Amino acid sequence: MNSDDGLSCHSSTINLADVTDKRRRIVIENFSPAIDAGRFTPKFLSNEPVNIEADIYIDSHDKLSCNLLWKQKKSKQWNVSPMQLINNDRWRCQVTFDNLGLFDLQVEAWLDNFANHLHKLLKKVEAKMDIKLELEEGVELIKKTLNLSHETTHDEVLAHLENYLCSYKNKPLDKASLTINSAFENYAIEADLLEYYDLKDTSALLLLLSNDIQTLHQTNCQKEFLTHSSIFPLRVERTQAEFSNWYEVFPRSQSGDSNRHGTFGDLMARLPHIKEMGFDTLYLTPIHPIGEKFRKGKNNSLICNVDDPGSPYAIGSHEGGHDAINSRIGSWQDFRCMRDAAKSINIEIALDFAIQCSPDHPWLTEHPEWFNWRLDGSLRYAENPPKKYQDIVNVDFYAPQAIPALWIALKDVVLFWANEGIRTFRVDNPHTKPFPFWEWLIAEVQDTFPDTIFLSEAFTSPKIMARLAKIGFTQSYTYFTWRNTKYELTSYLQELNEDGLADYFKPHFFVNTPDINPFYLQQHGRNGFLVRAALAASTSGLWGISSGFEICEAEAIEGKEEFKNSEKYEIRAWDWTSEGNIVSEISTLNRLRKTYKPLQTQQGIDFHFCDNDQVIFYSKKGKTHSEEKLDSLILVAVNLSANHLQEANLEVPLYMLGLHDNAQFEVHDLMSDSHFSLDGKWQKLCLDPSQYVFVIWHIKAREH
Amino acid sequence: MNSDDGLSCHSSTINLADVTDKRRRIVIENFSPAIDAGRFTPKFLSNEPVNIEADIYIDSHDKLSCNLLWKQKKSKQWNVSPMQLINNDRWRCQVTFDNLGLFDLQVEAWLDNFANHLHKLLKKVEAKMDIKLELEEGVELIKKTLNLSHETTHDEVLAHLENYLCSYKNKPLDKASLTINSAFENYAIEADLLEYYDLKDTSALLLLLSNDIQTLHQTNCQKEFLTHSSIFPLRVERTQAEFSNWYEVFPRSQSGDSNRHGTFGDLMARLPHIKEMGFDTLYLTPIHPIGEKFRKGKNNSLICNVDDPGSPYAIGSHEGGHDAINSRIGSWQDFRCMRDAAKSINIEIALDFAIQCSPDHPWLTEHPEWFNWRLDGSLRYAENPPKKYQDIVNVDFYAPQAIPALWIALKDVVLFWANEGIRTFRVDNPHTKPFPFWEWLIAEVQDTFPDTIFLSEAFTSPKIMARLAKIGFTQSYTYFTWRNTKYELTSYLQELNEDGLADYFKPHFFVNTPDINPFYLQQHGRNGFLVRAALAASTSGLWGISSGFEICEAEAIEGKEEFKNSEKYEIRAWDWTSEGNIVSEISTLNRLRKTYKPLQTQQGIDFHFCDNDQVIFYSKKGKTHSEEKLDSLILVAVNLSANHLQEANLEVPLYMLGLHDNAQFEVHDLMSDSHFSLDGKWQKLCLDPSQYVFVIWHIKAREH
Repeated sequence: MNSDDGLSCHSSTINLADVTDKRRRIVIENFSPAIDAGRFTPKFLSNEPVNIEADIYIDSHDKLSCNLLWKQKKSKQWNVSPMQLINNDRWRCQVTFDNLGLFDLQVEAWLDNFANHLHKLLKKVEAKMDIKLELEEGVELIKKTLNLSHETTHDEVLAHLENYLCSYKNKPLDKASLTINSAFENYAIEADLLEYYDLKDTSALLLLLSNDIQTLHQTNCQKEFLTHSSIFPLRVERTQAEFSNWYEVFPRSQSGDSNRHGTFGDLMARLPHIKEMGFDTLYLTPIHPIGEKFRKGKNNSLICNVDDPGSPYAIGSHEGGHDAINSRIGSWQDFRCMRDAAKSINIEIALDFAIQCSPDHPWLTEHPEWFNWRLDGSLRYAENPPKKYQDIVNVDFYAPQAIPALWIALKDVVLFWANEGIRTFRVDNPHTKPFPFWEWLIAEVQDTFPDTIFLSEAFTSPKIMARLAKIGFTQSYTYFTWRNTKYELTSYLQELNEDGLADYFKPHFFVNTPDINPFYLQQHGRNGFLVRAALAASTSGLWGISSGFEICEAEAIEGKEEFKNSEKYEIRAWDWTSEGNIVSEISTLNRLRKTYKPLQTQQGIDFHFCDNDQVIFYSKKGKTHSEEKLDSLILVAVNLSANHLQEANLEVPLYMLGLHDNAQFEVHDLMSDSHFSLDGKWQKLCLDPSQYVFVIWHIKAREH
Repeated sequence: MNSDDGLSCHSSTINLADVTDKRRRIVIENFSPAIDAGRFTPKFLSNEPVNIEADIYIDSHDKLSCNLLWKQKKSKQWNVSPMQLINNDRWRCQVTFDNLGLFDLQVEAWLDNFANHLHKLLKKVEAKMDIKLELEEGVELIKKTLNLSHETTHDEVLAHLENYLCSYKNKPLDKASLTINSAFENYAIEADLLEYYDLKDTSALLLLLSNDIQTLHQTNCQKEFLTHSSIFPLRVERTQAEFSNWYEVFPRSQSGDSNRHGTFGDLMARLPHIKEMGFDTLYLTPIHPIGEKFRKGKNNSLICNVDDPGSPYAIGSHEGGHDAINSRIGSWQDFRCMRDAAKSINIEIALDFAIQCSPDHPWLTEHPEWFNWRLDGSLRYAENPPKKYQDIVNVDFYAPQAIPALWIALKDVVLFWANEGIRTFRVDNPHTKPFPFWEWLIAEVQDTFPDTIFLSEAFTSPKIMARLAKIGFTQSYTYFTWRNTKYELTSYLQELNEDGLADYFKPHFFVNTPDINPFYLQQHGRNGFLVRAALAASTSGLWGISSGFEICEAEAIEGKEEFKNSEKYEIRAWDWTSEGNIVSEISTLNRLRKTYKPLQTQQGIDFHFCDNDQVIFYSKKGKTHSEEKLDSLILVAVNLSANHLQEANLEVPLYMLGLHDNAQFEVHDLMSDSHFSLDGKWQKLCLDPSQYVFVIWHIKAREH
């Protein structure tokens, strides 16, 4: 799909009838927002104004008129919104979409013969040239507009127009009361028209120029050279698609007793605490039955004790597969009860969609043709030599007998849980499954449930991660977890805002995951946790922690970014009130995110001068359109060294608020909730870890 | 046309058979060079290496192989060139196209099962894991490659391979002599294989890894998941499309006597002089018969004397129209004689293609239906109120009876002159004629005469100028003529090198034209002419002067950028050797352009630090690919004030030559042909107008 006219003169057979088609004369190009010329779908939030733009022009110096046509994909009825010329042949229209789901957008443009004629006529009036013929031609155009017969005389048309205006105004026509259309305001046609033109011409002229006749024309005119762009898609999503605070748990570790398998009931008991911290998405690692064949023991051991619960990612047992619940966590009734309890306090449950199977998954016997069998009759288990994942086997998407049954079965798994009220799915390793599969599955699911959110857990090359977002994933895991230095953080956040990526790639900043125990957290203690929480919560609309982060858990397998005694392989118990926890700081950060819109997106970040390499200093202005005037700004400074006092000279970007370099400004320190005022853009800041390792300010001009 | 797979899951009906098609699994995108995803045709010179690139990737960690397929558009036979992975999923292949005209390019990519299998196998060898089954599977893949029957045993396949290798090498096989394919060089499989594997396995392994078997596989394998990009166009042009020095004349002013109408004979007499100055395109303003009705007198007067020759842009009289020659300039024989004389000294004749007609043009009586008649039966002449061009009327491209006859007639005019040996057309005001018309006309003409060059004379909004280049114009007039300050020149030259514009928009820098007598030239005298000549000749592959520039002619109509006594309306005579002429400097500039490739393009320009706002300082490296190492560089410094001495501190970009900041370097001052050496990147330069207003240096590292 292309914004262009589809004319292809480099083809060897050129059809002259196509070339001369009047619908090809006007150019509509560079439609925005668009991804790869309309091939993919940009995503915006409901209730946020979207600027729809295109370059629109024609040969000659004639003037165009342009409309944006838009509708919900499933609707037949187009809405029409006029577009305005901004500058340099760029036209724009701002639309706020209310409903969720897919929309169609299209631009139409045409040559407005009547307006063009009047513009040229007025130039002649300014030069006091004869206009008799031009008036005649103007009347002729009106004749066409009104579909009057060719025989109608000039005077009859004018009389017709006068009648029209009279009936329109419901009172006798008074020429002096005619309002000249604003499109012609710039012309110097003064009251002395009668000096140069006779009464009849003057009267006809004023009639043609009147606002009412313009309106009549606009609604009735034949749109000359009417040209349409191709149709561009746009998806409207709910707020949680871009702004949410995630909390990840292993349900089985929520009992508070490492000897007792946690249940949905235990999870329910934890909901108020999670809510109080400000998290609104609760993500559960897989809750399905776990295989027994080749089950892993503690710390990923090949030796498994009878009590070991196994990795929840080894999905499927005699209890069932992806549409079953591990009975040790609870029953269907328990699940629904927990789900409803969460919903009642506005916590959304996110489930894991991990396509791999344990060797005990029912599909292996029911659908052996969906798997990759080896020459010796064995099943190819997951491996990345010399690493082996003996407890997991993968389906083969392109096995001859797997198409399309396997694809449909997987889609049905997602639809099954969507029907159970689940609308957020964290997808495990989507980059090792075919792109067309995801594009199809997500489109199908969202067709039925437009509010469904898919989070892509792909840590792979940048283009593959971007592709997954293009083809439909709502949110994406990122490299944030490994970006620690000022240079790394700056360039990564800039990269996420370049090349239109923000229109479809919504980054999720996890500070840790069950699989990633970052060296930075292992090495920097409590202050390190505060640094990473502040960075994630202030730079991205989506951030998340894996349970344990709030009590600064980072016990690692020596030399690895892996947790020791990982919850992936055993039941853990935690003391959520343990000393040194950062529950209060996390709660404050999440509260600020709810209050300040600039903190609800990765967009609108700018990095500012700061002469200390251990201090990162940036502003957040949020999603703003270039013309908008800012009256306040969020400033963040973080001491990346975590445990050493750092001083820095900062250049506060007062210019962004339209202030001069020496202006006074008001500061609201958001973490401490204190207020003070400062003078001028150059400020010295001391980040003393014994007091705080970061500051978040809300600044605005001083009121007089 | 789109580089993508055409899958459109945002459509409401999704065909699962399409989605699961194995030809959709691999992604090929961001093909380059491409304009608007293949809708338009990028242009390159014959014999210049072109980097063809695309992002190519697949889900999973499997390895791909990729080819570029390319052919002349009219050919049926594709050439195949393997592409190499550069970095970050970007693949490349460099091609040099010899023939002129249109080419088709396409990328194919596939999953190389055999190579992938061997890579995984070798990882196991490194870990000293069992490989019996993997060898078996490798042999199985070879069986498929060779189309051997399913019953063929493992040993038979290996024997078959050995035989193949023996016959291939024409000598008995010696395993020790097998060359391991370089793709597998990185694996640490040492000679101690036999320690861990038996003789049979080792022997099979070495066989599978051998270079020869890889070659066998490459040429015979079934390309798994074979995927093709769409087909992208590319045009190959002759050197003059991008590099030429233009000289513009009114043939009638070449007699040396303002009372005698110049002829082709007079023009012939001037050819050696024009050649000596280094110009290789001689552009003639229209040579067609000139209308008499409403003919303009001297200085665009409405009153025309009987001797006044009229504007050559008022085309057509009783003598004929666009395919006739003004008999006052000469006969057909004279024309051909002049054309051949020019050709013999490698000067190319460029003609003007100006579509407007005088009221005496034969088409007005032969084809009244091609014109725009007014209600009073008069013809609409060209006007831009209050300006009137009574001597010119325009055709109406979309008049009902003009389609397609007028379009074809206009194309035939160009073909007529092409058949007369003319291959360069300067097109007057193309932006006031429909884009589809030009796209079609240029494609049709170049289909027959691939060496045809079209220069667009459009001074209008940037997007319209770019569009004309996109749809086929070879070269474009530019705003250079009005870019005078350091800021204006810098930003304009940068703009011309941004957004892929250079792939299709080839800027022509005219220092003046018969219609443009720039204020800068009017105000700065001889030095001003040198400044503008140096700027144009050193920054653009295409530059041109209108005759008179070399003798610093700038007599203007007071307050306007128009020539007094313009050649457009009268016969002028010039003294080409008049005092103060800059013939010698122009000749030198053109000679340098011929010698130094970086001067043959606007590409590869970089602006460098210079602390004087009246001095512009830049380097030219020409068209280089990012990896290329530079061993020399052109440096240019111009005193924009023209008549005042200017000193400046310059930062010579030694880093571009891989030199350190204090390195010594050799300077060849090209205008004075003198040599000297300098130390370090910081240099002070004095541009004293009494000596020179600009310098052009060719610098390189000092030889030891």
